[in-house]
Amino acid sequence: MKAAGCELCEAPGGAVVWQNDLCRVVRVDEPDYPGFCRVILQRHAREMTDLGEAERAALMAVVWAVEGAVRETMRPDKVNVASLGNMTPHVHWHVIPRFRDDRHFPAPVWAAPAREHGVPAEREAHARELSAVLRRRLGPEAP
Amino acid sequence: MKAAGCELCEAPGGAVVWQNDLCRVVRVDEPDYPGFCRVILQRHAREMTDLGEAERAALMAVVWAVEGAVRETMRPDKVNVASLGNMTPHVHWHVIPRFRDDRHFPAPVWAAPAREHGVPAEREAHARELSAVLRRRLGPEAP
Repeated sequence: MKAAGCELCEAPGGAVVWQNDLCRVVRVDEPDYPGFCRVILQRHAREMTDLGEAERAALMAVVWAVEGAVRETMRPDKVNVASLGNMTPHVHWHVIPRFRDDRHFPAPVWAAPAREHGVPAEREAHARELSAVLRRRLGPEAP
Repeated sequence: MKAAGCELCEAPGGAVVWQNDLCRVVRVDEPDYPGFCRVILQRHAREMTDLGEAERAALMAVVWAVEGAVRETMRPDKVNVASLGNMTPHVHWHVIPRFRDDRHFPAPVWAAPAREHGVPAEREAHARELSAVLRRRLGPEAP
């Protein structure tokens, strides 16, 4: 179930906050974006449509639980959710709280920056509460 | 159910290929990316977690049907799927076939271009078949 040379088969891809047999939720260490999480499929698959319907629904349920926890904790102006995988073709979802004053807003985080780095202390404080909220919402097993 | 001043409440947002009460599928006119589609919620909502569970599942079923049609027709190296909405906070999904030789690969399409515009004629031909495949997969009503 692991693919040789796949970064997300060989390493967790971030600080693991929660996991089950299907997927893991990691916190992304990105100073411009406190609260940025990824939901990573445990097994190797390239595309969402390579998953069975039940597996896909269970994975998306975790993505929405993460979005809910990110909204509750971070109170973002918008949430960005994306499954790209051009560099690492192993199914994983980015869940990114966005704010009008963040480094790239209103552009996607992958675009050229719109302003200098600068994150309010309050936002970093909220992010510190996120892991506990994620674990509470996701529970001991799959939602 | 419409929000005043919302671009996706006031206009289709592209050439509509298929629609039902829940959502519409539009073809995006982006010369660098033949086969680029969007799935747009008909009613106004900002975030996926503002939708009820059944509504969210039904919308995602359309997104996956579109991904399937895009894969069948375009044979991309990777599919990118994203719900951002920073500019237009009305739930919509980008479904983008990506190729190793496309303008931004392996970066997201929102990043700085990696190379000049250039799309093989074959890819444009495949994209012309996409609408029929989408309609066949989505059927006369919601999947």
